[in-house]
Amino acid sequence: MADPNCQIEMASAILTRSDTFALSAPLTLDCGRMLDGVEVAYETYGTLNPDKSNAVLLSHALTMDQYGASLHPITGKPGWWQRSVGPGLPIDTDRYFVICANVLGGCMGSTGPASLADDGAAYAMRFPVITIRDMVRAQIALLDMLGIERLHAVVGGSMGGMQALSLAANFPERTAAALIIAATARHSAQNIAFHEVGRQAIMADPEWRGGDYYAHGKGPEKGLSVARMAAHITYLSEAGLTDKFGRNLQDRPDGTKGAKTFGFDADFQVESYLRHQGIAFTDRFDANSYLYITRAMDYFDLAEEHGGMLANAFEQSKARFCLVSFDTDWLYPTAESRQIAHSLNAAGKRVSFIELSAPHGHDSFLLDVPALDRVIDGFLKQ
Amino acid sequence: MADPNCQIEMASAILTRSDTFALSAPLTLDCGRMLDGVEVAYETYGTLNPDKSNAVLLSHALTMDQYGASLHPITGKPGWWQRSVGPGLPIDTDRYFVICANVLGGCMGSTGPASLADDGAAYAMRFPVITIRDMVRAQIALLDMLGIERLHAVVGGSMGGMQALSLAANFPERTAAALIIAATARHSAQNIAFHEVGRQAIMADPEWRGGDYYAHGKGPEKGLSVARMAAHITYLSEAGLTDKFGRNLQDRPDGTKGAKTFGFDADFQVESYLRHQGIAFTDRFDANSYLYITRAMDYFDLAEEHGGMLANAFEQSKARFCLVSFDTDWLYPTAESRQIAHSLNAAGKRVSFIELSAPHGHDSFLLDVPALDRVIDGFLKQ
Repeated sequence: MADPNCQIEMASAILTRSDTFALSAPLTLDCGRMLDGVEVAYETYGTLNPDKSNAVLLSHALTMDQYGASLHPITGKPGWWQRSVGPGLPIDTDRYFVICANVLGGCMGSTGPASLADDGAAYAMRFPVITIRDMVRAQIALLDMLGIERLHAVVGGSMGGMQALSLAANFPERTAAALIIAATARHSAQNIAFHEVGRQAIMADPEWRGGDYYAHGKGPEKGLSVARMAAHITYLSEAGLTDKFGRNLQDRPDGTKGAKTFGFDADFQVESYLRHQGIAFTDRFDANSYLYITRAMDYFDLAEEHGGMLANAFEQSKARFCLVSFDTDWLYPTAESRQIAHSLNAAGKRVSFIELSAPHGHDSFLLDVPALDRVIDGFLKQ
Repeated sequence: MADPNCQIEMASAILTRSDTFALSAPLTLDCGRMLDGVEVAYETYGTLNPDKSNAVLLSHALTMDQYGASLHPITGKPGWWQRSVGPGLPIDTDRYFVICANVLGGCMGSTGPASLADDGAAYAMRFPVITIRDMVRAQIALLDMLGIERLHAVVGGSMGGMQALSLAANFPERTAAALIIAATARHSAQNIAFHEVGRQAIMADPEWRGGDYYAHGKGPEKGLSVARMAAHITYLSEAGLTDKFGRNLQDRPDGTKGAKTFGFDADFQVESYLRHQGIAFTDRFDANSYLYITRAMDYFDLAEEHGGMLANAFEQSKARFCLVSFDTDWLYPTAESRQIAHSLNAAGKRVSFIELSAPHGHDSFLLDVPALDRVIDGFLKQ
């Protein structure tokens, strides 16, 4: 916090602070290794109150980062939750001090496989395999530095929800509430399978070079693009894709209206959309980070960490919980949230659980779902 | 039929005949091109009766071939429908003369992108983009050669069901019945999206070489393997994957029991399974065929071929129809079969439609589902 180089700016009337925090001690990881020199890049929005009781930690999803409510420095697009975080918004920056940190293993400033190891070269695949709990450990170190003993709430969607669960379970004194959206307490075989396809696509790309691509130009862009395309399908509902694209054909650059070309160009709009999603992703994401973060998600099994009983995970927690699922989310369907709610009930914890109706599939947590706004707003104000 | 080189053998008490038929005239394709020198590799099981009224055409799915009820010459495994085709089985070879032909565009003997063009080099991407109807045209030529004016039935699952629909719609005099299992009358945006991921994985592999890999060793095996992995997930249900693999960890070659390695080996059994599926596929399938056949499926829209009204497609048909879907099939869910049934009803055709309960997802049509056996048996005997 004392670093004079940190940036403070007023963006859209949000007091935004971007900084990087260097841990003073090595981080002990689940794999057994100690990671030295860990840095956490983060943003804060709003003002920490004098008794430091108004902090809300936003945990981000797989491909997101600390730019939750400010323009993304690479894409120039709004932050991933700009619609929900700000003055008067559900995560109200006039009321809360919002912290959003790039995860350990990420590629937007926090220590990850692209960071330099002691020998001056990028870790690449020498980076330790991390877990969701390791990501949370780095966040706890950040909270320690900020002097925040107890969060008002931890909030996250998708992988962010996994982190929120992990924080509430493993650091029960550190949060008064946990809001978990479109998440799961463990990755299913199908979840793992989709991630494995993505990893194999990256590793199959000869430009991946066993992970040592940093000194060789752009890296495995084609493989990463295919990985993103495959994953992207899982973020959307079948009906949502049909509504948005159906079998509509792409208009041609030469002005001809959509028609089958009897070739392998992107005839269908959905093909063009997916290709664009894949290519755009490679501009802002590191392929090795994608490997490591998907691995952390696949390893996540909160019950397994606590003797095989999910209810045990929450034994020490005094937090209020809120679980939100979406009826069209087939990546982490409602049954996953319901199971967490049942376990919290079994552990005698305070929990509310709601399935919202939204057409967009898993990505609903990032999109315009007014009912979600009301749930967030109401839960945080309790 | 007169070719003395054709093979006749008794396999598992099925009179099996393997042959290749060369069309005498060029095939006119939907893309407008004429394809000369088309060959169709096929097998027959059983005996054609004197009035040629007992022929059943089996149409195969994307990655299948003519080896429906005989050992596969590359894998050495039983034919893809060996459990359903044979003496006393639902597709009873004591009763029916069963024909199964490798599709146009395939890679097991029928003309496809690996076939030699007039210049003596493989077509590769010079092969015309074909459609499901083009595949059916090649089958009709085969039926002409065999002297079969009217099939007792055409039967197919998945892409085989699309061919069965196309045959019944476009060649209404040629079949008395059509049995369509786990299929659709048009590919959805999500279906197209998954195929596009597979195609991009193949084309991203530098060994693909713009399709001209035939003279350069093994071709885009890594890309094809990724494509197969992505597709394979869509063939199975989420619950089926969970039942089969869950989060079970792989035992190690060194004898250690399953444990997380904190690395990128196949820790989870589902990862190992998928990798195996991907690699094994490259031994028996041509990557360019995968591109062309997926394209044909994506282009398939039976209503569009008939003025935008699916009911119109069946106007001329006198066939009996039977549609079967599986409750856990999320690739071509029940709603797709129901829509076909409604259109057949609207066209005043004879149709029965049943959703079967089976845990395996889309692949249920290939697996042990006794209720399916009874439906096939009953429908063919009507």
